[in-house]
Amino acid sequence: MTAPIARRARHVAVIGGTDVTAQVEADAEAVGRLLARAGVVVVTGGREGVASAACRGASEAGGLTVGILPGRDRSDANPWVGVAIPTGLGETRNALVVMDADAVIAFPGAYGTLIELAFALLADAKVVGVGTWALGENTSILSVDTPDEAVRLALG
Amino acid sequence: MTAPIARRARHVAVIGGTDVTAQVEADAEAVGRLLARAGVVVVTGGREGVASAACRGASEAGGLTVGILPGRDRSDANPWVGVAIPTGLGETRNALVVMDADAVIAFPGAYGTLIELAFALLADAKVVGVGTWALGENTSILSVDTPDEAVRLALG
Amino acid sequence: MTAPIARRARHVAVIGGTDVTAQVEADAEAVGRLLARAGVVVVTGGREGVASAACRGASEAGGLTVGILPGRDRSDANPWVGVAIPTGLGETRNALVVMDADAVIAFPGAYGTLIELAFALLADAKVVGVGTWALGENTSILSVDTPDEAVRLALG
Amino acid sequence: MTAPIARRARHVAVIGGTDVTAQVEADAEAVGRLLARAGVVVVTGGREGVASAACRGASEAGGLTVGILPGRDRSDANPWVGVAIPTGLGETRNALVVMDADAVIAFPGAYGTLIELAFALLADAKVVGVGTWALGENTSILSVDTPDEAVRLALG
Repeated sequence: MTAPIARRARHVAVIGGTDVTAQVEADAEAVGRLLARAGVVVVTGGREGVASAACRGASEAGGLTVGILPGRDRSDANPWVGVAIPTGLGETRNALVVMDADAVIAFPGAYGTLIELAFALLADAKVVGVGTWALGENTSILSVDTPDEAVRLALG
Repeated sequence: MTAPIARRARHVAVIGGTDVTAQVEADAEAVGRLLARAGVVVVTGGREGVASAACRGASEAGGLTVGILPGRDRSDANPWVGVAIPTGLGETRNALVVMDADAVIAFPGAYGTLIELAFALLADAKVVGVGTWALGENTSILSVDTPDEAVRLALG
Repeated sequence: MTAPIARRARHVAVIGGTDVTAQVEADAEAVGRLLARAGVVVVTGGREGVASAACRGASEAGGLTVGILPGRDRSDANPWVGVAIPTGLGETRNALVVMDADAVIAFPGAYGTLIELAFALLADAKVVGVGTWALGENTSILSVDTPDEAVRLALG
Repeated sequence: MTAPIARRARHVAVIGGTDVTAQVEADAEAVGRLLARAGVVVVTGGREGVASAACRGASEAGGLTVGILPGRDRSDANPWVGVAIPTGLGETRNALVVMDADAVIAFPGAYGTLIELAFALLADAKVVGVGTWALGENTSILSVDTPDEAVRLALG
């Protein structure tokens, strides 16, 4: 029974850019894989780059992946999104990507990633950064170097 | 691998009131069960009444259920929601409940149900009504009497 | 000092279709004019048809008009919108068009108008209909025939 | 005729925290006053702190002020908001505060301000910072020290 399992699972959002280096993609994929193995639902913005890599890693490890899409069409999701949620909200949907999350793992990205990071911080979510925006000493982003550390901290 | 299965699945939204008769609840539960057996992801507003009954039917038949919530807290979902999506949009989230759907099955309900019905009609979705709002001859709601007919038409 | 004046003013939403008869446009324009003369801020969806006619009537009578736009671009507003509010929410913005209103005057329209009507009824706003959707005896739409009656009831 | 005047006017968003120093409030009020004198519509989030100060400055100089509110109630606006737009979107409405703007003037603030700043940068708006978030060399925030410089750059 998939549904009750998903219900009891923790949700972790994985955020980052659509146009990132191969190393960042490999790290995001590893994060997705590790989260899925821990029984965590992986939530993303559902598009390319970090979202796609994290969904691929989670999906190939048998995990459930969610994509909160900017447009109105479920088929805009990357191929590794299990449950695609169209919103029609454009980039305003970034608020919803992290609203769902018990913790957020943030990779490098552009302003869309910064928006998600700021919404997560506003909601007082646990935020783990793997080379993401530096926002100064007063923000509570936990900075790490590896996928293993990121997942350990996110789930700790 | 849950995720790719969910991805290929059709999505059907089941809408209706929070305060409905036992007969409507039983019918909504039957609709959820039949949709799950057909491999369909059941999307609802995630709260009580029709949404709860449809999710219960689908979940107990092993199906995947999605709840698009008005608030910011995943725990507001009824116990049979598998994937809860908090939106923080209040009743404005009704637009998103049917945006996701290949077809919509509508039970009796109040103005919240009417909003979802109108968004579904605006999006030109297939809408099957089981005793829901009567909107006149010019609307394209397919009216049926039983859960079996509703699901057959929704998936036909 | 425009701002304090606007602040104390009542807000009335005027809703209806984009493709309506000349008679409906004339009535919507009259409603806009009468509302403006009563010092009321006229709120609309900001586009064509009823919205455009109501804004024209209000604007030419010296009133303040607001357009809550579906897109991201202020220039999508009709020429008689004084304050254009882009939302980027698509048709989901219909929820916002009536949220602002002390009363709603509804003309004939398609599903977009039905959405706004349903949001207004859900919010328990005073709704005056001039030939709009017939939703049955149990809804609280006050039905009238002329712009004068509509405005008198809306402000009464 | 207020409406056409407002329509042709430029819109500038003034953003910043709700709990700021007296100096920041004085600067925000000066910015509002200078914008109003230039015939600019001042758009804010409609609440306290920087938004309130900017609206006060603009309103007392005879300008038009807009407040895009998180809640559903127009009366949540600060007393100097001329046109209050309730959204019911919570903090997600921050996306809309800057969507409207030809330029954005950003004062110090917390994560809500960072969200608005990021949405403005994503939309490629002209952003002038008066002691706001430092986001690194690659962002295009124009940094200034005084209200005069801020308004000159915003309107330049």
